[in-house]
Amino acid sequence: MDEQRTEAWWARRAWALLSAVRSRAPLVQCITNLVSMDIAANTLLAAGASPAMLHCIREVPEFTPRCDAAYINVGTLSEDWLPSMMAAASAGRPWVLDPVAVAASGFRMNTCLSLLKLRPSVVRGNASEILALAAGSGNSSFKGVDILHDSEDAQQAAKALACSSGAVVAVSGAVDFITDGKQVIGASNGVPMLQKITATGCAVTALIAAFVGADPSDALVASACALAIFGLAGEIGMESAKGPASLRVNLIDALYCLDEQTVTSRVKISLRP
Amino acid sequence: MDEQRTEAWWARRAWALLSAVRSRAPLVQCITNLVSMDIAANTLLAAGASPAMLHCIREVPEFTPRCDAAYINVGTLSEDWLPSMMAAASAGRPWVLDPVAVAASGFRMNTCLSLLKLRPSVVRGNASEILALAAGSGNSSFKGVDILHDSEDAQQAAKALACSSGAVVAVSGAVDFITDGKQVIGASNGVPMLQKITATGCAVTALIAAFVGADPSDALVASACALAIFGLAGEIGMESAKGPASLRVNLIDALYCLDEQTVTSRVKISLRP
Amino acid sequence: MDEQRTEAWWARRAWALLSAVRSRAPLVQCITNLVSMDIAANTLLAAGASPAMLHCIREVPEFTPRCDAAYINVGTLSEDWLPSMMAAASAGRPWVLDPVAVAASGFRMNTCLSLLKLRPSVVRGNASEILALAAGSGNSSFKGVDILHDSEDAQQAAKALACSSGAVVAVSGAVDFITDGKQVIGASNGVPMLQKITATGCAVTALIAAFVGADPSDALVASACALAIFGLAGEIGMESAKGPASLRVNLIDALYCLDEQTVTSRVKISLRP
Repeated sequence: MDEQRTEAWWARRAWALLSAVRSRAPLVQCITNLVSMDIAANTLLAAGASPAMLHCIREVPEFTPRCDAAYINVGTLSEDWLPSMMAAASAGRPWVLDPVAVAASGFRMNTCLSLLKLRPSVVRGNASEILALAAGSGNSSFKGVDILHDSEDAQQAAKALACSSGAVVAVSGAVDFITDGKQVIGASNGVPMLQKITATGCAVTALIAAFVGADPSDALVASACALAIFGLAGEIGMESAKGPASLRVNLIDALYCLDEQTVTSRVKISLRP
Repeated sequence: MDEQRTEAWWARRAWALLSAVRSRAPLVQCITNLVSMDIAANTLLAAGASPAMLHCIREVPEFTPRCDAAYINVGTLSEDWLPSMMAAASAGRPWVLDPVAVAASGFRMNTCLSLLKLRPSVVRGNASEILALAAGSGNSSFKGVDILHDSEDAQQAAKALACSSGAVVAVSGAVDFITDGKQVIGASNGVPMLQKITATGCAVTALIAAFVGADPSDALVASACALAIFGLAGEIGMESAKGPASLRVNLIDALYCLDEQTVTSRVKISLRP
Repeated sequence: MDEQRTEAWWARRAWALLSAVRSRAPLVQCITNLVSMDIAANTLLAAGASPAMLHCIREVPEFTPRCDAAYINVGTLSEDWLPSMMAAASAGRPWVLDPVAVAASGFRMNTCLSLLKLRPSVVRGNASEILALAAGSGNSSFKGVDILHDSEDAQQAAKALACSSGAVVAVSGAVDFITDGKQVIGASNGVPMLQKITATGCAVTALIAAFVGADPSDALVASACALAIFGLAGEIGMESAKGPASLRVNLIDALYCLDEQTVTSRVKISLRP
């Protein structure tokens, strides 16, 4: 780990990457769940990226190679979308996996394990998802897509998963962790009420794909910065929110409006000891 | 009917059930239409429930039995989702049916009639839907999913449907009716502009599923309370709404923020003569 | 072109058509992409139309003939929806095509070309989509669903497409153009930030379908007026927007609230020289 990676370094990096998304407008193909499409697309647009929701196997082999990144999310998995997920993951572009509720069924677990073999650049989930995926087996105490475990509990699982898969693994929680199996980065922007808005996890994973698409050189840095930027937009949105629905509106507005001063002074990312 | 079921009794019951949803966070599987997914999930989250949008037949037999309740909605029916609907309805959990636009086609009517045989705890629709479902045949004057009949017109149909199906039947309208075939309960919270927001009917049916999931002991009471709570959130949302889109935002915010004082003083439920 | 078609004539016509939508509540069947369903349905409701999101081939032959108009959008095209699109387009009702990202793949282009043969009343796209569709072949510089070309660049392509297809062709951009192959009408309401909200293009195409459904006598006039009304709602929404998410809320609210004075004084439509 470079010595110069202070909080200020990270905050400047977050601004540089957001600026890269805005100027390069990376084309991000999303094969995502039916609940998240609206918020994922609007998050990408607000950040400056160009979303493309395509999931047809007749189009993926032709379209995905033209994208800057792909985003695959199994939230409303169905068998007929599986070939497209596999094809998009195999198209040679950077891609990001969101293993929503991976322990919901054996079918879902096997799908995620198959996708994992296609070498995603990043896997992002909550602690219970990352724990389950690392264990590679169902979790009998599974309860929906909500967060069961503190993200710190999943730190060891995340490192193991990163090592075995070769992916950067990001774990969302009160503090987000991002690891490549060696270093562990913490990103602590965000507000608890984000969990009361459906598909914010899916939206931030889409944003990670946009950051990776804009600068594929370092998926660890891109993931940490995307998580912090999204959390910061949530913090700003929370300042005038009256509940989860106005927070959602405010978050997207804030993401669109983020400026250098705000990002460099408020992004909180640091190396974990 | 117990003598003590005054308006005040109902209002306290509504608060108790909302509190139960918040504390127990019932896991509600939703096999719902593509338009409603966002608002249904956000309604459930705002109320304190845990939504899970899963519709894959490879997952339903494993997942639905772990849920507190299931919610099945035929709004964007397609043949490939039918086996999952049937499997979820057969999984032995309380479940709620929303027969959106049941008269739109013979296929849709037959699907709803088949689902009805799998004994939902609750069926909720608008007057024209309940009338059509009770008649068990298409309605040549069908016009979209909007409300054609006053909910009072459908009261007799609702009672007949409740008796024949064994389900509690709820009819949305200017005043909502809820019946188990014997008693008829009226719930009169709400504002007309809710009809100008897509899928608010779907969202309130999802909320009924959450209430039934949190306390399956009395689906009649749970349904009436869920309808009143949703309508009350709409009333509060309307206070600062400038149109249907801000009403939607405000409604979800208000549902999240409802407190005991507001619920017990403003919920309007009563036995119909 | 009639001499009397001044800006004032157009503005009065826009108000008359919006009033017709409000009073007749045309039933508009939407076979649209998964991202756009919520905003398209809410746009239709806010304008006074009655949306019906049905896409099942078992229902289309029975349902579409009862509709005032149909709306077909290929944004998240999949093979299993194709028969329904073809059946709805063949049902003998006025229908409108949105060829989202037509150049994304050969499959999508061929689908749109097949649909075009079924004689839509209106085709609406951005400049790159209309250019690609007119050329009838993929565009190797395709980049997502964003706007690559100024709408003026596509004017000649739009006229050629209108002549060959028999449809009115509308091209969205800084200024919208609408042509039947002979006349070209310009509609200049709107704000740039609408492009930062996903599926606003889909929503305005749905609104065109509602206008055509309310008055099928002149699809050129209906299309121009729908585009101007939607753009005007965006202008009003922009007055208090803090970013794309609040703009979306405000736009729907404004569409619902539009009154005669506002419409007749602010709609900007004129014949192009």
